[in-house]
Amino acid sequence: MNSAIAGLDLLVFFQFIGVAAFAVSGALVAGERQMDWFGVVVMGVIVAVGGGTLRDMMLGATPVFWIASPWYVAVATLFALATIPLVRWGISVRRPMLVADALGLSVFAVLGARKSLELGTSGSIAVIMGIVTGIFGGVICDVLANRTPIILRKEVYALAALAGGLAFVLAQHFGLSAALSLWGSIGIALALRLLALARRWSIPIFKIESSEPD
Amino acid sequence: MNSAIAGLDLLVFFQFIGVAAFAVSGALVAGERQMDWFGVVVMGVIVAVGGGTLRDMMLGATPVFWIASPWYVAVATLFALATIPLVRWGISVRRPMLVADALGLSVFAVLGARKSLELGTSGSIAVIMGIVTGIFGGVICDVLANRTPIILRKEVYALAALAGGLAFVLAQHFGLSAALSLWGSIGIALALRLLALARRWSIPIFKIESSEPD
Amino acid sequence: MNSAIAGLDLLVFFQFIGVAAFAVSGALVAGERQMDWFGVVVMGVIVAVGGGTLRDMMLGATPVFWIASPWYVAVATLFALATIPLVRWGISVRRPMLVADALGLSVFAVLGARKSLELGTSGSIAVIMGIVTGIFGGVICDVLANRTPIILRKEVYALAALAGGLAFVLAQHFGLSAALSLWGSIGIALALRLLALARRWSIPIFKIESSEPD
Repeated sequence: MNSAIAGLDLLVFFQFIGVAAFAVSGALVAGERQMDWFGVVVMGVIVAVGGGTLRDMMLGATPVFWIASPWYVAVATLFALATIPLVRWGISVRRPMLVADALGLSVFAVLGARKSLELGTSGSIAVIMGIVTGIFGGVICDVLANRTPIILRKEVYALAALAGGLAFVLAQHFGLSAALSLWGSIGIALALRLLALARRWSIPIFKIESSEPD
Repeated sequence: MNSAIAGLDLLVFFQFIGVAAFAVSGALVAGERQMDWFGVVVMGVIVAVGGGTLRDMMLGATPVFWIASPWYVAVATLFALATIPLVRWGISVRRPMLVADALGLSVFAVLGARKSLELGTSGSIAVIMGIVTGIFGGVICDVLANRTPIILRKEVYALAALAGGLAFVLAQHFGLSAALSLWGSIGIALALRLLALARRWSIPIFKIESSEPD
Repeated sequence: MNSAIAGLDLLVFFQFIGVAAFAVSGALVAGERQMDWFGVVVMGVIVAVGGGTLRDMMLGATPVFWIASPWYVAVATLFALATIPLVRWGISVRRPMLVADALGLSVFAVLGARKSLELGTSGSIAVIMGIVTGIFGGVICDVLANRTPIILRKEVYALAALAGGLAFVLAQHFGLSAALSLWGSIGIALALRLLALARRWSIPIFKIESSEPD
């Protein structure tokens, strides 16, 4: 068996899991806001590809990635729509979703950092692009749902994306192999996110009494 | 009379109607949120050109379309400002607006799909770009007005944009003439939207009891 | 002393002040929304570079400006984080911030208009790009904080950005020197903004009784 191809396949499979998980989480937010089926698809697709879209637009890597690879949008559409009967049948998707979502976050953050490096940015910009790829789909989704983005308010979520991107940049800098850089940094991000979930880690809050009514 | 030029003129005229209608709808949202006159202009311009701007940025068709053709922003500014005295004089603009808005939606969706095809995307991406062109100006406007985008919650609106874009892509695929492809698909989108308004068609809602406070 | 270099230094210094002030204002909004420290950084960076990022994406001037000059993001990150202890120690940053923020608005608006002209746009587009550069970071920040953008609702803020960009475009059109165009138009925008603050100038409001529940 060719391990390079197996590694590639596994990466595609992990991306698939991530796209599906992100799409389901967008669909769940759409359901909480009582959107129609079209809104469910829009929200699912935006969570799945929104971060990478913003990354590509900022980097000038246009047309954005999903225009040449429409399977991202197709998979996100299918899983967003599939969320509707799953919820109606009372099948709880939230708990198994957490692991799938953590995997998606880790894979997207590392691949975002890698794409940024490939386009010639510095390492610090690559880390930022990894974070943008991993979290901004969810941020846009929360904005459309008219609520303050959850990931800006609680939990070690973006920090896991940061750790994954940083690990990849450092691994490349110190000349580790492509495969080790990739899988090692995905593993670091994933471990950090899962530990944060298990131990309920959170980041300190900055709280000001609001000085003006809105 | 040269029918090609007449067709071109009619298309420009329809775009003009669409830009005006979209700008007025943005100005009305600004008024509901008690924005100042500057906000009225910003909201009107965003509804009118926001969707096409996002489309161009995602496709890499930059500078975006209105930078080389400033009449879009000028017309949107004028109609947004004109909304203020119209509303003060008690002239109801909402009902006649619905038809003008439907025309704008149809024209923008089909032209968005056409531009996408011209830039070499697949047909499915062209349909998505048609939807983005037709609806995302309104989505951004609703986000700025701090409410869940209406078109994600009710009515057959985005579906009309989808139908128009899809009809255009199919017409081109089957070799219909440029004029027939254009006007036929605009007609399909317009008919669907007007029928949806007249018969109060809506898309099923996906509703979940919210599991967390926001 | 070389006055050209001194002028350049002063411009960089003013940009530094502007980035710092914008970052602090983003951090304060994050605090009002009880975001975590990561959210504080995200909000500070977005206010500081969001407007210029949108400008560059619309103009096709990608990769966006801060990718080649990471000091913008670094300074914004530092000042956003520094806001946390300042507020905890009870040091009021709001009042001195107003002048720094006005300086940032003026510098960013004029530099945004200049960049647009350098990329070959018309003068009217350059004015728009100046406004976008000056205000859209704050607009995106307010959207993330789930409130209607303040600058669309009150005060002469965007109008100062418009005046600065317009003055720069006119100065260039009439052949004034680069330095006079730059500093004169920054001065005009700054004077207008400070006068508006001192005299509590505001723009008329457009108010419609809301016709639908949201």
